[in-house]
Amino acid sequence: MRHPSYAIADADLAMLTDLYQLTMLQAYWVEGLQERATFSLFYRRLPATRRFMLACGQQYAAELATRLHFNDAHLASLAETGQFRDDFLAWLGQWRFTGDIWTLPEGTPVFENEPFMEVDAPLAEAQLLESLVMNLVQLETVIASKAVRVVLAAGDRPVMDFGLRRMHGIDAAVRGVRAYRTAGLAGTSNVLGGLRHEMPLSGTMAHSYILAHDDEEAAFAAFARHYPGTTLLVDTHDTLAGVAKVIALMDADPEIRVGAIRLDSGDLGTLAREARTRLDAAGYPEVRIVASSGLDEWKIAELVAAGAPIDAFGVGTEMGVSSDAPVIDLSYKLVEYAGTPRLKHSPGKINLPCRKQLYRRQDAEGRYAGDIIALRDEPGIEGEALLRPLVRSGQVADDEMALAEGARERVTAALRCMPESLLRMEAGHADYPVELSPALARLRSSS
Amino acid sequence: MRHPSYAIADADLAMLTDLYQLTMLQAYWVEGLQERATFSLFYRRLPATRRFMLACGQQYAAELATRLHFNDAHLASLAETGQFRDDFLAWLGQWRFTGDIWTLPEGTPVFENEPFMEVDAPLAEAQLLESLVMNLVQLETVIASKAVRVVLAAGDRPVMDFGLRRMHGIDAAVRGVRAYRTAGLAGTSNVLGGLRHEMPLSGTMAHSYILAHDDEEAAFAAFARHYPGTTLLVDTHDTLAGVAKVIALMDADPEIRVGAIRLDSGDLGTLAREARTRLDAAGYPEVRIVASSGLDEWKIAELVAAGAPIDAFGVGTEMGVSSDAPVIDLSYKLVEYAGTPRLKHSPGKINLPCRKQLYRRQDAEGRYAGDIIALRDEPGIEGEALLRPLVRSGQVADDEMALAEGARERVTAALRCMPESLLRMEAGHADYPVELSPALARLRSSS
Repeated sequence: MRHPSYAIADADLAMLTDLYQLTMLQAYWVEGLQERATFSLFYRRLPATRRFMLACGQQYAAELATRLHFNDAHLASLAETGQFRDDFLAWLGQWRFTGDIWTLPEGTPVFENEPFMEVDAPLAEAQLLESLVMNLVQLETVIASKAVRVVLAAGDRPVMDFGLRRMHGIDAAVRGVRAYRTAGLAGTSNVLGGLRHEMPLSGTMAHSYILAHDDEEAAFAAFARHYPGTTLLVDTHDTLAGVAKVIALMDADPEIRVGAIRLDSGDLGTLAREARTRLDAAGYPEVRIVASSGLDEWKIAELVAAGAPIDAFGVGTEMGVSSDAPVIDLSYKLVEYAGTPRLKHSPGKINLPCRKQLYRRQDAEGRYAGDIIALRDEPGIEGEALLRPLVRSGQVADDEMALAEGARERVTAALRCMPESLLRMEAGHADYPVELSPALARLRSSS
Repeated sequence: MRHPSYAIADADLAMLTDLYQLTMLQAYWVEGLQERATFSLFYRRLPATRRFMLACGQQYAAELATRLHFNDAHLASLAETGQFRDDFLAWLGQWRFTGDIWTLPEGTPVFENEPFMEVDAPLAEAQLLESLVMNLVQLETVIASKAVRVVLAAGDRPVMDFGLRRMHGIDAAVRGVRAYRTAGLAGTSNVLGGLRHEMPLSGTMAHSYILAHDDEEAAFAAFARHYPGTTLLVDTHDTLAGVAKVIALMDADPEIRVGAIRLDSGDLGTLAREARTRLDAAGYPEVRIVASSGLDEWKIAELVAAGAPIDAFGVGTEMGVSSDAPVIDLSYKLVEYAGTPRLKHSPGKINLPCRKQLYRRQDAEGRYAGDIIALRDEPGIEGEALLRPLVRSGQVADDEMALAEGARERVTAALRCMPESLLRMEAGHADYPVELSPALARLRSSS
């Protein structure tokens, strides 16, 4: 039989686009509209439960842009749609990205209307990147921006990703781990994701392991003998009875070492306190407590605030789909064409024309004091210029940037520089100032 | 430089698992726990804004199970983790799925606690499928179950998928189209997704096309000449002024054919009525109106109920991530091992032991009257048996089923058989009866 396949090769990603990009490209080609254009990638509105987003995925996506092209099989498929001329398809077969791409380094906190990425290229090149770049950047940005909140809530307790089974498909599960690494998680249960994105693998045991044994004691004993220092899941039948069995097991055999117990249901705070008391009383203060089961940043913050003796958190569902804010309204807008500013009229929305740069100011203590969105070459703007040229004339100009190395360290450093109002868990936004430069403000008001 | 890659080959999917599956497998292997097990895939609770789910992805996933295996590179990576014995890894290299998989046909409406899929196999084979099967089934089930509501709300007006840019990554975007086809959408803007999953491609134009021209009139004229019968996007500057320009264009050149206009912002109902009036008054009743911009099933139902003269809908963000219910709480539970029922204790939750079958009864008019969850071989249960053997002894037993052909037609037929209370848009659940068979009810109460 013909096998259905899940695989999507990098070589096919040029075809992961909206049909209108290709019909517009053909129209541009017929009309000779091939002047240089700038498209800007940004989002308009923070979700109600985010105080900043972490810009992620854009360096990786920019590198991919330099490799996109259409092969003969793609061109044949497009010909079959009946919408494309042969001479256009021949031209499309030669399509390569020859422009420049400026991006924020991955892991940079980013606010409303600030450019993540600007693409300067002949119109048909910059246009074609739209759908794919938005898809790629949206996933990692949404996942990392949720995950960093979970990390913040957990404080110095490590957080592990247990979300593979709930994330939206294969690519989200694997590339999600990349976003988790950037956000500062300590480990992942996802084998392929962890190996590919260099994240420590972590795992305990499932209820099925317990149930496959005739009794819980036998299951605990067997697993602890296989994996000295392992974590035992204690809630299959009754959590505190499970804790008692773990204690009895260690009492009976001093050779057995249990690293932690995992609580996966019930009132985690109360159960953790009870379990801690019993473990300590039995002389096992070194056995740690891991909690999982429907956790998100608010539940973790509550457990931490209540002083629940939980040493590490496993988080899946809510973080894996960023369930309270599964999308951001990313836009990829034409802002300049043939040297002139371009601007869509959008009542109540801010559209910023022209090639731009983003500056971030720090106060004397190194704390972020505010951002300025300016024209790319506007002189005299204070602060650190955050957009950097990653691709020049279709070539990766900075290998290290293309791999987005240092993204995790960038997040750690940024969290230290953020005003406290940006780090709060409650819904609602902070008063972080984002201003327009004088030249950009003039352009906006005149257009 | 080393290229970061997005591609995930089918051959690597055995590694898309949680670490604990592999550590449990090693423990089972060391302990000689290799009796036959049954795992059951189901969800516990309907989201508040769903009245049924469409079971999707499980046939495709079952077929994949017959192809999963670990190659030498995988085994070498696992060896490097330091958690696995060489003799176990040698055994893992021989791991193949040799069991049976029963599934609901894709597109079957499914309710709380009903099995989507049951896997009967030696313990280590059935265990390993857990993480991957849940990931695969969750994506398509969540997306199709949202999309079918959008289709229901739109009634006889076609719905197009415009969601590629907002979906969670590459696989979600491509395989989402498969779910959309099952749910009854009319087309997709996603080129790779549409070609791979045989869904008609659909597309209009973007604001950037308008903005790349010196004026809107010139852009409309050029695009309509390239693509006779096309759809023109009229809201770049002012929607009704845009409509007037389309009318003027058609008046000025009788050769020009415009198929539709697209409204993408503002009050879609009011704008559609105004646009319809002007097009009709100008003698263009055949020009259709397409609406997009933040649509979901509730907004569409409202537009339809208000009689808005909209002929087709383009839906992206909300449908593409199923934003109101981006996950379901799928479980894959061990229900039988070595011939004995297995049951986790979960206060307030229903766990159904043993191999099962799902029956659906229809009344005299063919309308669904209720479901019965029974033991697999329990005699005398009324209704159609819905779980079918797709894989037998590790081989696909039914090619047609593995490809899930007919899923779309199955949904169409099911919608006709559903009681009206299941088809409503409001939050809240219908009183659709799902009962346990006598033998299953006895087993539950005795366990």
